[in-house]
Parts: sequence; C-alpha cells; structure tokens
Amino acid sequence: MHPIGKTHWAIPEGYIPPGSTGEGRALASHEAACILNANERDAHVEIMVLFSNRDPAGPYRVTVPAMRTLHLRFNDLSDPEPVPAGTDYASVFESDVPIVVQHTRLDSRQDALALLSTIAYGAD
Amino acid sequence: MHPIGKTHWAIPEGYIPPGSTGEGRALASHEAACILNANERDAHVEIMVLFSNRDPAGPYRVTVPAMRTLHLRFNDLSDPEPVPAGTDYASVFESDVPIVVQHTRLDSRQDALALLSTIAYGAD
Amino acid sequence: MHPIGKTHWAIPEGYIPPGSTGEGRALASHEAACILNANERDAHVEIMVLFSNRDPAGPYRVTVPAMRTLHLRFNDLSDPEPVPAGTDYASVFESDVPIVVQHTRLDSRQDALALLSTIAYGAD
Amino acid sequence: MHPIGKTHWAIPEGYIPPGSTGEGRALASHEAACILNANERDAHVEIMVLFSNRDPAGPYRVTVPAMRTLHLRFNDLSDPEPVPAGTDYASVFESDVPIVVQHTRLDSRQDALALLSTIAYGAD
Repeated sequence: MHPIGKTHWAIPEGYIPPGSTGEGRALASHEAACILNANERDAHVEIMVLFSNRDPAGPYRVTVPAMRTLHLRFNDLSDPEPVPAGTDYASVFESDVPIVVQHTRLDSRQDALALLSTIAYGAD
Repeated sequence: MHPIGKTHWAIPEGYIPPGSTGEGRALASHEAACILNANERDAHVEIMVLFSNRDPAGPYRVTVPAMRTLHLRFNDLSDPEPVPAGTDYASVFESDVPIVVQHTRLDSRQDALALLSTIAYGAD
Repeated sequence: MHPIGKTHWAIPEGYIPPGSTGEGRALASHEAACILNANERDAHVEIMVLFSNRDPAGPYRVTVPAMRTLHLRFNDLSDPEPVPAGTDYASVFESDVPIVVQHTRLDSRQDALALLSTIAYGAD
Repeated sequence: MHPIGKTHWAIPEGYIPPGSTGEGRALASHEAACILNANERDAHVEIMVLFSNRDPAGPYRVTVPAMRTLHLRFNDLSDPEPVPAGTDYASVFESDVPIVVQHTRLDSRQDALALLSTIAYGAD
C-alpha cells in the first residue's frame, strides 16, 4: 500500500463539550483525532496540546501499529495530564513515519447530537 | 474539462453508526466516499479498509465512469467482506486516473440527523 | 490584499435535501458553494455539474466581483437547467482569476437542522 | 516544536446565525476562527472581512501569543466595526509568522445545535 501522509499535523480547534445527553460511550460528547498509519512500520506519535492562557501540555505519546488506524479521544488522554472539558485548546502532532490525521467532534449537550469533522493541516 | 485530482486518497475517520431513526435509504445512518472523476477515461479505484485491531480488508474495487460521480456508501460494500457497523475504521483509495474524494457521514441515531463532511487527504 | 486562491476547484459531494422543516429561505434545506474573490479583478466562474448516470450539466456561469464573496446556492441555478433535489451530483469550478471555494449544506429535513462544510479541493 | 503553518488563510463561508436556543455563551450561535500559533514568536494577524454587496471591513487586528491558540469569535469583533449577523461574508487572514486557521460554526437557531468545521485554505 502507498505510504500516504505527512509527519506533522495541526488541529487549531479543540473543545470537549462539558456534558452529554446520549447514553454510553458511543454517544458521550467527545473529540477525537483519527490517525491512519498506512505504512509497514509502526508510527510513534507525540502530541502537544496548546491552550489560550497557559503553557502547553504534553507530550502525549501514542503508537499506531503498521496498517492500523487509531481513533484517539482527547477525553481519554491522562499522561502527563488530562485535557480539561469546556476549555479551548489546539493540538500538534509529530510522527516518525507518514500518517494522516482527521479531527472529529461529537457534541450531545443538547437533545440531538451534532458532528463536525475535517482533515487536519499536514506538513513535513 | 480540467482533469482535476490526485491518484491516492485517505480517510482516517470511519464509523458506520449502528442505528437510525429516519425512514428510508436517504435518512438511514451511513458513511459515504463521494468520488468525482472529471477525466475522459473511466477511473478504476481500489479501496483498502484499515481497522484498529485486525488486518485490513480489501481491496474493494469500484469503477467511476468518465465524467461521472459515485457516492459510494461503505454500508453497501460486500466483496470481499462487509464493513461492520459500530466499528472504528479508516480507508485508503488508489485510482489509475486522477479523482477527488470527499468523506460524508449522516448519523440519525438520535432524533435529528447530524452530518459531517471533509475533502479527504490526497496525494500522488 | 494577497490574491489568495486557485483557478480550479472540485466538490465531489452534492445533494440538495428534498424537504425542509424550517421556515423561510434561511432555514430551507440547501447546498452552497461559497466563493471568495480577494483579487482586484472580477472572477468569471464556470461550473459543471456531474451526475452518477447522465451527462454533465452546464456550464453555469457566475461573476464574483473583485473583493467580494458570493454564497451561491445550487438550488438557485436555473440556466441551462435546474439542479434536481434528492439526486447525487458533484461540481467542478474554473475561474479566470484565483478564488477560494467552500462547500456547505444545511439539511432541515428532520426537526433540527444539520450542517456540513469543507474547503473544496483546489488546483491550478 | 515544529513551526507548522502558513502566513495567509481564507474562509469563503461566513454567516453568524441570527438567533439561538441554547443558554449561555457556550451554546449561543456563533462563528469562530480558531488560530494556532506553534511558533516561539507572537503572531500578529490582520483580518479582512468581505461581503457580497459592499466594500470589505477591516483590518481587524489580533495577537496570538507564542505557543498559544486563540478561538476568535467573529461575533466579538467590534473594531473597526461589528460583523453583522444574518449576513453572508468571507474572511482573509495575514500573519507575520506561520499559523494554522480552522473555521467552526455553532448554530443553535433550532432546538438542537448543529456544527460545521473545516481547516481554512492556507497559502504563503
């Protein structure tokens, strides 16, 4: 398979909605970085989280195995610190092999869920 | 017409919502890859589907005729195997002529539908 | 101002929802190509609409004046023919000066509206 | 950190929904440009707002400190003039250091909110 992608990615928009109306993990409000690794080698990814009024958090480290995808929820990050809900943030990704990153949010604060998604901004 | 596009495309986000509240095919929860072929030649496209914890599925093969668009629902893929609902996946496309790919999801699990869409990530 | 943009654009996804629950033009289901012309010269844009099972329609011709934006609804196109609702289509844009194109849909078929948007795919 | 980004950005779609059903600032209908500055230097950003039938407004000036993000609501702009609600507009950004810009709208005119988002169009 074609090793498609880039090694650096950025997502300026970040906000974990502080509340949910749906039931279960699938419908809980969340924000995800979907990472695709179409390489023969595992991708080691470092993520920095930037805020509006404090120093960045991280690096968070995840591994995406070769020929796999990881739909990483920012809600699930805990090391070195959780990403707070209800707070503006942004994120920057650096990988040792080319990957593709897509940003998705599910917001179920109100009665019916809302979705957004975009391919992140990539660079080498 | 200008033969706009690229030959390789990736969509890191993939998830077929396992349920619907709308009636009929139009409002059923689904995920689509909209493929545009603005060339004078048919496009032969191979799609690989990647998962988080198993080997990739595919290749799935579709033909998009010259000067046509195909709004392909992942829900409709069956050969070599269906794409399971309620499961994280990603997809990679390879075409023999330049195409453009856009990713769209309609989620009608809750009372009102939600939509997301993005141009996929393209490369040559 | 920087003459930002490209001369060719493509939107693979196209579908005018055949129904609305909102009142008035603002909440009617629609699909738009938002065109930005940040040049000192007017942009003359030709649009071709592609389908899944018939020959393309067009060209549709619009002018976006210098330093203006046009949020063009596909619903409003009539010459040489209307774009049918409830039908899969795609669109290709060619301009004589650099422009930027963004695709947006408002779908109010169900009780609460849904939105999608993405920057289109651009090339020179 | 990698100084990811570009110095010019464009968002063709702009529309502040003239009404809200949610309570509080978080659920008020709004449109935002999320700006990421992953540089060691502050970013000085000038924003021009274009309309369909009048001359552009601006420049609006904002500073995004080094290693910070700013989720700027168009609703909050006031100098040299507010951005009117219920009106089609577009925006162009120029920065003295590379930044990344993402466009997001929250529309709560109807009973349940709707979201859209896309990485803006970037150029140097």
